[in-house]
Amino acid sequence: MSEQNTTRERVVLAYSGGLDTSVAIGWIAEATGAEVIAVAVDVGQGGEDLEVIRQRALDCGAVEAYVADAREEFASEYCVPALKANALYMDAYPLVSALSRPVIVKHLVTAAKQFGATTVAHGCTGKGNDQVRFEVGITSLAPELTCIAPVRDLALTRDKAIDYADRHNLPIETTKSNPFSIDQNVWGRAVETGFLEDIWNGPTKDVYSYTDDPTFPPPADEVVIAFERGVPVAIDGMSVTPLGAVEEMNRRAGAQGVGRIDIVEDRLVGIKSREIYEAPGAMALIAAHQELENVTIEREQARFKKTVGQRWTELVYDGQWFSPLKDSLDAFIEDTQRHVTGEIRLVLHGGRAVVTGRRSDSSLYDFNLATYDTGDSFDQSSARGFIDIYGLPAKLAAARENAS
Amino acid sequence: MSEQNTTRERVVLAYSGGLDTSVAIGWIAEATGAEVIAVAVDVGQGGEDLEVIRQRALDCGAVEAYVADAREEFASEYCVPALKANALYMDAYPLVSALSRPVIVKHLVTAAKQFGATTVAHGCTGKGNDQVRFEVGITSLAPELTCIAPVRDLALTRDKAIDYADRHNLPIETTKSNPFSIDQNVWGRAVETGFLEDIWNGPTKDVYSYTDDPTFPPPADEVVIAFERGVPVAIDGMSVTPLGAVEEMNRRAGAQGVGRIDIVEDRLVGIKSREIYEAPGAMALIAAHQELENVTIEREQARFKKTVGQRWTELVYDGQWFSPLKDSLDAFIEDTQRHVTGEIRLVLHGGRAVVTGRRSDSSLYDFNLATYDTGDSFDQSSARGFIDIYGLPAKLAAARENAS
Amino acid sequence: MSEQNTTRERVVLAYSGGLDTSVAIGWIAEATGAEVIAVAVDVGQGGEDLEVIRQRALDCGAVEAYVADAREEFASEYCVPALKANALYMDAYPLVSALSRPVIVKHLVTAAKQFGATTVAHGCTGKGNDQVRFEVGITSLAPELTCIAPVRDLALTRDKAIDYADRHNLPIETTKSNPFSIDQNVWGRAVETGFLEDIWNGPTKDVYSYTDDPTFPPPADEVVIAFERGVPVAIDGMSVTPLGAVEEMNRRAGAQGVGRIDIVEDRLVGIKSREIYEAPGAMALIAAHQELENVTIEREQARFKKTVGQRWTELVYDGQWFSPLKDSLDAFIEDTQRHVTGEIRLVLHGGRAVVTGRRSDSSLYDFNLATYDTGDSFDQSSARGFIDIYGLPAKLAAARENAS
Amino acid sequence: MSEQNTTRERVVLAYSGGLDTSVAIGWIAEATGAEVIAVAVDVGQGGEDLEVIRQRALDCGAVEAYVADAREEFASEYCVPALKANALYMDAYPLVSALSRPVIVKHLVTAAKQFGATTVAHGCTGKGNDQVRFEVGITSLAPELTCIAPVRDLALTRDKAIDYADRHNLPIETTKSNPFSIDQNVWGRAVETGFLEDIWNGPTKDVYSYTDDPTFPPPADEVVIAFERGVPVAIDGMSVTPLGAVEEMNRRAGAQGVGRIDIVEDRLVGIKSREIYEAPGAMALIAAHQELENVTIEREQARFKKTVGQRWTELVYDGQWFSPLKDSLDAFIEDTQRHVTGEIRLVLHGGRAVVTGRRSDSSLYDFNLATYDTGDSFDQSSARGFIDIYGLPAKLAAARENAS
Repeated sequence: MSEQNTTRERVVLAYSGGLDTSVAIGWIAEATGAEVIAVAVDVGQGGEDLEVIRQRALDCGAVEAYVADAREEFASEYCVPALKANALYMDAYPLVSALSRPVIVKHLVTAAKQFGATTVAHGCTGKGNDQVRFEVGITSLAPELTCIAPVRDLALTRDKAIDYADRHNLPIETTKSNPFSIDQNVWGRAVETGFLEDIWNGPTKDVYSYTDDPTFPPPADEVVIAFERGVPVAIDGMSVTPLGAVEEMNRRAGAQGVGRIDIVEDRLVGIKSREIYEAPGAMALIAAHQELENVTIEREQARFKKTVGQRWTELVYDGQWFSPLKDSLDAFIEDTQRHVTGEIRLVLHGGRAVVTGRRSDSSLYDFNLATYDTGDSFDQSSARGFIDIYGLPAKLAAARENAS
Repeated sequence: MSEQNTTRERVVLAYSGGLDTSVAIGWIAEATGAEVIAVAVDVGQGGEDLEVIRQRALDCGAVEAYVADAREEFASEYCVPALKANALYMDAYPLVSALSRPVIVKHLVTAAKQFGATTVAHGCTGKGNDQVRFEVGITSLAPELTCIAPVRDLALTRDKAIDYADRHNLPIETTKSNPFSIDQNVWGRAVETGFLEDIWNGPTKDVYSYTDDPTFPPPADEVVIAFERGVPVAIDGMSVTPLGAVEEMNRRAGAQGVGRIDIVEDRLVGIKSREIYEAPGAMALIAAHQELENVTIEREQARFKKTVGQRWTELVYDGQWFSPLKDSLDAFIEDTQRHVTGEIRLVLHGGRAVVTGRRSDSSLYDFNLATYDTGDSFDQSSARGFIDIYGLPAKLAAARENAS
Repeated sequence: MSEQNTTRERVVLAYSGGLDTSVAIGWIAEATGAEVIAVAVDVGQGGEDLEVIRQRALDCGAVEAYVADAREEFASEYCVPALKANALYMDAYPLVSALSRPVIVKHLVTAAKQFGATTVAHGCTGKGNDQVRFEVGITSLAPELTCIAPVRDLALTRDKAIDYADRHNLPIETTKSNPFSIDQNVWGRAVETGFLEDIWNGPTKDVYSYTDDPTFPPPADEVVIAFERGVPVAIDGMSVTPLGAVEEMNRRAGAQGVGRIDIVEDRLVGIKSREIYEAPGAMALIAAHQELENVTIEREQARFKKTVGQRWTELVYDGQWFSPLKDSLDAFIEDTQRHVTGEIRLVLHGGRAVVTGRRSDSSLYDFNLATYDTGDSFDQSSARGFIDIYGLPAKLAAARENAS
Repeated sequence: MSEQNTTRERVVLAYSGGLDTSVAIGWIAEATGAEVIAVAVDVGQGGEDLEVIRQRALDCGAVEAYVADAREEFASEYCVPALKANALYMDAYPLVSALSRPVIVKHLVTAAKQFGATTVAHGCTGKGNDQVRFEVGITSLAPELTCIAPVRDLALTRDKAIDYADRHNLPIETTKSNPFSIDQNVWGRAVETGFLEDIWNGPTKDVYSYTDDPTFPPPADEVVIAFERGVPVAIDGMSVTPLGAVEEMNRRAGAQGVGRIDIVEDRLVGIKSREIYEAPGAMALIAAHQELENVTIEREQARFKKTVGQRWTELVYDGQWFSPLKDSLDAFIEDTQRHVTGEIRLVLHGGRAVVTGRRSDSSLYDFNLATYDTGDSFDQSSARGFIDIYGLPAKLAAARENAS
């Protein structure tokens, strides 16, 4: 590195290995005069090897390349909290992309500190949620860093990217038309495509990759998932890490076509958009976790947890992973998981993940109170007094109505 | 009627035509000295003709019998509000029994006024939700009425009922062992049975009646449901009443095994119980309605409506249909439905009711804002300013963390 | 006016009659080539006569001047809904400025339509809430209008304004240093000043105008306020309009130093700011209204109304007066006010507005249920059954804790 | 102790030293055949020495007497959490009695275990909140214990108590007519009296004891309260324990007549009642704490904390101190207090406790962002982009309205 270089500004770039961010390396350097450090984070998106990606970054002009296998970290510290919150945005979307952004942000900030960068760059457009998640995430960890988005701020269109890659002979394929815009990680997969921007159109089969067609499923698959304090710890008796649990359930629930999602969604930037997701493992795990909560969490705690979970989900969708409120909601949720320990039996079949059994040493289900058979220990004589007092406010209100 | 009779107290009894309430007619009369008026309300539970039931009541000793076909009323005034609220207790149960209690209560109170009764009797036990729903409902409409439950208050056990029916030669079948306790209406069906009180046991096939086995479904069934202000008004282009919509969807979604529910549930009386439900029409309609809301309701309104819908659902589950808070929540929900007009295309297949298309003249989805293709009207230059200010509170909090 | 002029763009300007907006008339015309129409709205801010203001606008170069006495409208349609919501942002601030913005917006939009303007201009800076309230309000009523803020967008600083006024000999006083930035209307008065930007400094006496010093008050003043469905309709037996109620209470509560507020507040634009408010009438009316609700609203309705009121208050503070959610919250609140009818006796003295009596024909307070004396009609034998069932969930949870 | 005694059941009795519970010792023994252990807990209620009370219990027939000075425990573990929650039931009542019940319950359960009792007795009636708080609290800590209330369950009326005390010559004063029913502790004082059951009547001066008349106050008293993580730790620079803080503020705020409360309140048992409270220290501390939160807590965290604080307050009022939800809410609140460290200056005068200054090293108030003077670091150019996107949903909804 020449002396000159030591005084150049440095930019860390969220690098995927694809065309746009490969071009962005040189594009940013040219536009800003800064050195670019490529940062690639494996969150289970599959595809190329991290070392291949690292080499491509260097070949495309990056002065450094930082790669991290963050799959276990992502599963344990991002997916598991979402599972504990039963996080489904708009009752449907398990926050696939919204969860991966903060873990990538964390590595971007680490890389920025390690390499002395003052700026973070990402490949998002100016109309999506992810630009907000990246930038708010970054300033929530490192308020001194600034952010730049070449597509949005430096006019890096797809056509220009292809042209640039051809001109500079970058080691990356340049195909003009990929109809799908895809983001995927171990928690799920998001797909956007022009055809689906007409919201009356149904998705076509080529949209899907994590899930087989549920219309013609293989025989039903029964699975028992064990949780400890809300964390999946074993599947069919075999110990698993959180990553292992998600991967195994992706495989098995995916084979049954579980977890396809098709919704019109409220974006953080104020518009509605059509989204297709696949999240077989996430959806199966949430179904199991939610029913184990039904068995082990006290009623009023469960009712309020829904409100907390909804706010948690909105915050994370809205890019506020590192916000103070998110921390406090986590403290609440963590406390509720103290007894969420036990086993859930699921049947996976034809797009459905159906709970058929639950058992737990910390269950609040009491057979003797619930049964209508011999052994009933519920004191039915309490009911009259309960009803008298429980119904009193509505009764007084009714008496007023009748009087008026 | 003798002079003596005119001074006897009168009791209206919620009458099903079955063994327990047939015996209750005489049992109450003997225990209290009162005259009993039987009240039977058709909420779509199927089974015998109302006239048959009326005659049986009289044959069992009722001084009067009041029967009402409340199916349209139930669908329009009870099921439709639940649909507007997307009411799923514990994210799962569409309030089947909880919805029918208030319409029955309304007829019980009408009958009590018509026949000069001072007391209302019902067939519930002392450990369930329905006793509370009946009694709180009744005192919320007619605070001057008192309530009595022969099973709970007059020691009318099943064995005693069989014995009584035999002794008095009542015109009703007395079979000692029916393993299922069932409540059903047009919105769905609830089943409890001893075998399922072990929550590790899965449901057996004989539990179900409204739905066919989703494991071996007929070919997929595509249906288009039209809504006006949140109310289903047409199916596949044919106008329907709310009742017609529910019945048609029960038939078609039921044939595909849609709407089977199996949960451990928090009862109002403080215990957890295992419940099996079937609600094919309700679940399909809610799926369609919810997605139409996604398309037509503004984001912040939609987010708060979830909180309102949750409270509405808890209140109705908890027997507070006629409470002041329920009225105010209805006013909120009704206002949100102003633009929930349009069509949803669903595919029903193998236990799934999946939205594949939506169209609405009052859609808030704006193709030109959402598209990534030509015609994009979203001003991406706004994003930077938005992110700066939107992220400022978390950034300031982060700066504090870093300083400390 | 020449033919040419008829094709010039037109801008409506929110005009106060003060230096900044007087200069803005010419400033906008010069910067944009547009004609400027001045719009002045009386929301009870006191000061000059509307006709004086109208003439000044014309003298400063406005092509038209639109003036409106909106005091009754403001009190009835903006202050009264705030009263029904008991709206106190951060439990303290009765939304003084936040309420007046939407009524001004309504008149700006009316004027824009009347005079064929395509743009609305306002005098706010780029770091406050009011710019957001104006602009979001305007696009929420008339999405086709665009907004401009000379101070923020056209570099109209105070120094430049003074210079401009001097150069053009505008009929307006130009004093360089007014330490206070003030916004006032009939609902209250907001003051910012450099001295108070040090949040350890207490307010000085010259900050206040609507309230006398509570330290040395006149003798206590007892007042009886009558409400119908949440609206103040009489004071000490004399019928009043909403405007009359606020004005009378401003006078009487102001004389006692009621309603001074000093808080650090979370602005919509992401920063915290120090604010001083005076709202004697508003604070006294809210105290009275809230206690009348305590007497006339059922418990669960009251509890949920707090959540609704909080959200309502946040929305209005955040400039979302014309948003769909605000409409739905209004529907909820309006329903809760059905029985908020009756009288409240307040004692005003030395900065305090203290409720000492309440009476209402629609009261839910039942002397016979509440009394511990003869006549007690509460059935204490119900309590045991109530406690058994009410306490059951926590008891079961405790049994689990003890077992583990 | 005779052999016979060892097999007798034992009852622990919440003992105040007053007439009713002194009589209850013998009354319970006679009615149930059990031995009675008196338990007296000092929560700062003042009055007699614990040793005097212990001796009286024994003189009245208790087989054991357990006395505990729980003042520091009560202040630290019960009042401080209420302060962190800014707990004001119905925006007014700082939970005076509701807070002391659980600490007394804790000692009752400890005593029951120590002395082998199977039953807990308390002196409450059957129509108040405290019976529920005692009994739900006890079964939430020790589900195996049963509860008894002599007044409610054993017909121990005041007249019978006086008669019994006279007959048995108990060492306790028996005055037939005390017009006030009082409960007090270091956090405040609650008064009920027949005269105030007419809710149009204002309180008379003899109702008050913790506060002097605010009408004629001494000169204003300025006080600086320092908090660490939400806990008061110093007053005017002198270190204090939580108990010391409450006592000192009771003295100083009480002298100024701060903290008188007069409301119609929604009881847990379904009725409304009129209550008078005095809580000078509590109200002054809450005012200070709340403003320190305004300075140190991020906006969204603060907004959600209001919802959490409201639920916390309802739960504690409703006797659910030891419930699982309460624990989870505590976890949330505790997390929010991480930065609630700093000083608040209050002026106490004439019934008002007014914040006039605040300073904190962990403040989120940023002078440079807030100021309108030189040094302003807020980038006003961000505002336009923010407003465009922030206002977009309402704008789209407006466009729909205008189209339809």
